Amino acid sequence: MSGLASDDITPWLPPEELALVRSKVPMIYVDIVPVRVDAVGLVEQVGLLLRNPREGGILRSLVSGRVLYRERVREAIVRHLEKDLGLLCLPQLPVAPQPFTIAEYFPTPGAGFHDPRQHAVSLGYVIPVDGECEPQQDALDLTWFTPAEATDPALLAEMVDGHDVLLRQAMAHVGRLW
Amino acid sequence: MSGLASDDITPWLPPEELALVRSKVPMIYVDIVPVRVDAVGLVEQVGLLLRNPREGGILRSLVSGRVLYRERVREAIVRHLEKDLGLLCLPQLPVAPQPFTIAEYFPTPGAGFHDPRQHAVSLGYVIPVDGECEPQQDALDLTWFTPAEATDPALLAEMVDGHDVLLRQAMAHVGRLW
Amino acid sequence: MSGLASDDITPWLPPEELALVRSKVPMIYVDIVPVRVDAVGLVEQVGLLLRNPREGGILRSLVSGRVLYRERVREAIVRHLEKDLGLLCLPQLPVAPQPFTIAEYFPTPGAGFHDPRQHAVSLGYVIPVDGECEPQQDALDLTWFTPAEATDPALLAEMVDGHDVLLRQAMAHVGRLW
Amino acid sequence: MSGLASDDITPWLPPEELALVRSKVPMIYVDIVPVRVDAVGLVEQVGLLLRNPREGGILRSLVSGRVLYRERVREAIVRHLEKDLGLLCLPQLPVAPQPFTIAEYFPTPGAGFHDPRQHAVSLGYVIPVDGECEPQQDALDLTWFTPAEATDPALLAEMVDGHDVLLRQAMAHVGRLW
Repeated sequence: MSGLASDDITPWLPPEELALVRSKVPMIYVDIVPVRVDAVGLVEQVGLLLRNPREGGILRSLVSGRVLYRERVREAIVRHLEKDLGLLCLPQLPVAPQPFTIAEYFPTPGAGFHDPRQHAVSLGYVIPVDGECEPQQDALDLTWFTPAEATDPALLAEMVDGHDVLLRQAMAHVGRLW
Repeated sequence: MSGLASDDITPWLPPEELALVRSKVPMIYVDIVPVRVDAVGLVEQVGLLLRNPREGGILRSLVSGRVLYRERVREAIVRHLEKDLGLLCLPQLPVAPQPFTIAEYFPTPGAGFHDPRQHAVSLGYVIPVDGECEPQQDALDLTWFTPAEATDPALLAEMVDGHDVLLRQAMAHVGRLW
Repeated sequence: MSGLASDDITPWLPPEELALVRSKVPMIYVDIVPVRVDAVGLVEQVGLLLRNPREGGILRSLVSGRVLYRERVREAIVRHLEKDLGLLCLPQLPVAPQPFTIAEYFPTPGAGFHDPRQHAVSLGYVIPVDGECEPQQDALDLTWFTPAEATDPALLAEMVDGHDVLLRQAMAHVGRLW
Repeated sequence: MSGLASDDITPWLPPEELALVRSKVPMIYVDIVPVRVDAVGLVEQVGLLLRNPREGGILRSLVSGRVLYRERVREAIVRHLEKDLGLLCLPQLPVAPQPFTIAEYFPTPGAGFHDPRQHAVSLGYVIPVDGECEPQQDALDLTWFTPAEATDPALLAEMVDGHDVLLRQAMAHVGRLW
């Protein structure tokens, strides 16, 4: 759940209203691990975004964002993938709505994930993308890593907002955390 | 997600603020199927609440309610179970946070579940309760049914808010929908 | 787990050896629900095979069969789908190996599923197929049904070997059992 | 799936018959991660067995073993837990039969897990035990570790048969791999 997601400021909810709502109830997010799979569905590569955060430096992140009012979770997954990887990324959504995990982000550091802006409950999905992927908007780059590379401690250290933990959970779920 | 849940009006969020928030973002709920299990974990009975809704008549429901600001999902599950079944119900929470399904409720009838008050995303859990269960608050009764009885069309017809669908999904998940 | 699956008699295991093995240990199967999905992954149609069993009459079944010695579960899923729906069916295998359920078939009728030939543990998967599907071998027909049609009691009554139960479990899992 | 499990030589299947069967079809196993949980179901400790393998040295393992002919998976889970942790371990079996993952062991080293004796498909479960646990039979000790301790590389290096991988997958599944 990156502090960079520009969709948080949508026409549907001006910043001051979003700030108010965020101080009252937990927000619903999707955290998405985009992957390339082989002919029998085994994960071969994981796509990570490279970003240039407001506070300086550089970081890697998953695809992540809010579920909007009246938006279906499936639509939110497609919207965030297309927003970050482009309209030609061709995601294969799962047949079941069940997330592989949920991540709970709290505004105060402590147990669990931390997001200074809000309390959020995020639904995690691993989504194969078949099409052409290009980094969009504020992303500097999109890089594909093997599961072994993606779970290397040096790379995980470049991730923020608990995305390193989610990525390892995702690789464990697909049987690719060795 | 019953229109009766009194916890929606908590000290933490006055009605007018809740109404505002509900018109802006999706709300997070838990929908819980309380069950009795045998020695090897097989579901033997399902607990359904009998309620007297504002609009008259009678209806059956699962245990359901909102996740509060700064509240963990696990704590919300326990709070709603204790609120509806009493402090001695002794729920056995699952080791993994993954819900067996998610249910999406929209304010406009159509595809999916319907809740005229709001857009809500509900995390579904089947939770064994070992202790003594007594209906609380506005519930008239708590009745235990076998999976076969609970999924009888006549009984399902007495349920509201899509709880009939969730109950059948839950019984399918635990291998007890025949 | 149909009594018709011809792959049970493979070059790798002659009938008398299979019979011996079947009387000693549980066998591993895959039970597959082939589906057509829409652009956001929602199940629109379920494919059921129409067969002419040895004992006469007519019946509908899922795609089902044994996992062979040294065969990966993913390979077994593809092999059985291609065997029943043809080489052009183009299955989209799930990223995670976790089945949506397991079904246990016992040689003696009673609790659970029944298979007079053997004790089998079957891993259940719902698999989208994108390509052209043609009934193969001993199948008379392959018919696509909406989830509502497929779970109609009249149609379920035409299914054997517990496939009616598995189909309802699968539709519940994908959020399409209403 | 330890090479030490004495239950593989049962009255129901003499060694020479088991050897024959193992060369013909995949075997079904359960791999169980015994855990202690807190009041809301969060995993606090993982139980690992310390063993003295035939080939010398020392190793740690999960609870693991074969599903017998005509035995339900739930019964196999209880039997193996009681065999390794004692009759008073009081396991809380999950309500759903769905394993959190499957592990495939092949007789030839390569991709996936390796078991020189056989091809096996193992169903993985994380099972809370509430009662008194004592190491049984050939186990030298049973030690409880926090999730952080249990996934320390030094400890994982003491595990065999892919149990280190399964343990990390299990901790990821329960949200305790950080």
